[in-house]
Amino acid sequence: MTRADTTDWIAVDWGTSALRASRLRGVEILDEAQSDAGMGGLAPSEFEPALLALVEGWLSPDGTDILACGMVGARQGWVEAPYRAVPCAPVDGTGLAAAPVRDPRLRVRIVPGLMQARPADVMRGEETQIAGYLAQEPGFDGVLCLPGTHSKWVRISAGEVVSFQTFMTGEVFALLQGRSVLRHGMAEGAGLDDAAFDAALSDMLSHPALLAARLFGIRAEGLLQELSPSAARSRLSGLLIGAELAAARPYWLGQQVVVIGADTLAAAYVRALASQGVQAVAAPGDALVLAGLMRLRARINGGLKP
Amino acid sequence: MTRADTTDWIAVDWGTSALRASRLRGVEILDEAQSDAGMGGLAPSEFEPALLALVEGWLSPDGTDILACGMVGARQGWVEAPYRAVPCAPVDGTGLAAAPVRDPRLRVRIVPGLMQARPADVMRGEETQIAGYLAQEPGFDGVLCLPGTHSKWVRISAGEVVSFQTFMTGEVFALLQGRSVLRHGMAEGAGLDDAAFDAALSDMLSHPALLAARLFGIRAEGLLQELSPSAARSRLSGLLIGAELAAARPYWLGQQVVVIGADTLAAAYVRALASQGVQAVAAPGDALVLAGLMRLRARINGGLKP
Repeated sequence: MTRADTTDWIAVDWGTSALRASRLRGVEILDEAQSDAGMGGLAPSEFEPALLALVEGWLSPDGTDILACGMVGARQGWVEAPYRAVPCAPVDGTGLAAAPVRDPRLRVRIVPGLMQARPADVMRGEETQIAGYLAQEPGFDGVLCLPGTHSKWVRISAGEVVSFQTFMTGEVFALLQGRSVLRHGMAEGAGLDDAAFDAALSDMLSHPALLAARLFGIRAEGLLQELSPSAARSRLSGLLIGAELAAARPYWLGQQVVVIGADTLAAAYVRALASQGVQAVAAPGDALVLAGLMRLRARINGGLKP
Repeated sequence: MTRADTTDWIAVDWGTSALRASRLRGVEILDEAQSDAGMGGLAPSEFEPALLALVEGWLSPDGTDILACGMVGARQGWVEAPYRAVPCAPVDGTGLAAAPVRDPRLRVRIVPGLMQARPADVMRGEETQIAGYLAQEPGFDGVLCLPGTHSKWVRISAGEVVSFQTFMTGEVFALLQGRSVLRHGMAEGAGLDDAAFDAALSDMLSHPALLAARLFGIRAEGLLQELSPSAARSRLSGLLIGAELAAARPYWLGQQVVVIGADTLAAAYVRALASQGVQAVAAPGDALVLAGLMRLRARINGGLKP
């Protein structure tokens, strides 16, 4: 039996900077592959070749179902999968966009992102992670926090995304750490200096209006008071996460919060929320995209109710 | 009479990205020249050649006094001119650092910047602009605002800098406009959309803790509500200037404020302050560095009291 004979469908996580594919029979993972052909570097005509380069060996001559999520469905992606409006289930099988292909073995459908009219907000990719989490925890009622380049805070109730808000915390951190005057005297990649992180966090939660006033102080203390590079980086992280938490207070105050992720960043959010009396828990996020695509596949095939 | 015969001294404004020199007899400008040999691109050994390339034709065989200010005196510059601590006159002739030279015709002294211990802050270059302003307005008592890459708010009393605070507003604006996800759907260089600027400014002055929550909304409204590129840019400007003003409130509330600069940016600050009931005035900033170096030259030569 060849590989292609056993493939049932292919799940694709196609973000800005990476392309990841999984070969599946039902919910059994038979193979995984990835490349750096993220949508950020591709023109519309380059998506099909990039996908074929990764999965051609898995395809059946009769055609193979492929479900893809992430920025591949953005306006600048392969084909736009228009946003679905909240409140709604994170994925429900509606709004899928068929990608235009030349190779008839490819039957590619792209998961739509979610939009919120007021305050205006969008997500693309996280809806599938959220669906994966709810597949594991179907009765969850509370708030999900997905920290990262664009952190998302998401209210979940009765299996639906009720509202959400995006913070550019990770992107602003990377720009200030790598490209601003603060890059002098800042250690990249080191662990957190807990004391510096906690002090900055507490400062922002007490005085959230002073973010703009605090940033240059990192540089000045580096020059005048020999603030260490790891303390400088930890303070910047604490200031920006603190400003995010202060502005996201309506999301977490008195709520059950799950932080998606098991890395240093998720731990920093759990630590920060604990300082505010919120006992958030971190949940591993690695497998959630695939779990969400499995959930969607089951819903499409089996007519599962939302 | 050759050029070199008439040169009395040379004033140099040496910032991160540009080098500007003026040939003077007393306070009379005989010549001006500039290059893009800013300190940001120079190794220590490259400063003397960069300066000679610009001013060699002006030098007297017996040597010429050169006063330089700006980032040339930073730790990463030609030679470090250690900061003077506020409160103090912006320049008083103390703390000048002699630059190491091979060409005996160069007698270069570099103006020290100012430091503040608590909250930690530094300036380098602005002290000379401030001295130039005070040379024109010797009795000034109030607050100077110097908007830019690193905006400075400066309390002046009895001819001294009493305290100051730096905001990275211009640098953060440039990074978000040019390098973040907000670059999609943002017009560079266009004028301000006053309505969008004013609304964002008012939002930040009323809800200064929400800066982190507002940034991604620019992108989302561009996607969902066709926010125009000029409105997007104006809103970003209004959010960041509004956050600066909110955090700088102790500097301007009930004070006499002069905004140094006569460009669009200074006008935006004046407009913003007016919305808060502060009748700030804009003062041209172009000639202030030279006026400050002239003031310093006079003080060194004539023993003017501070």
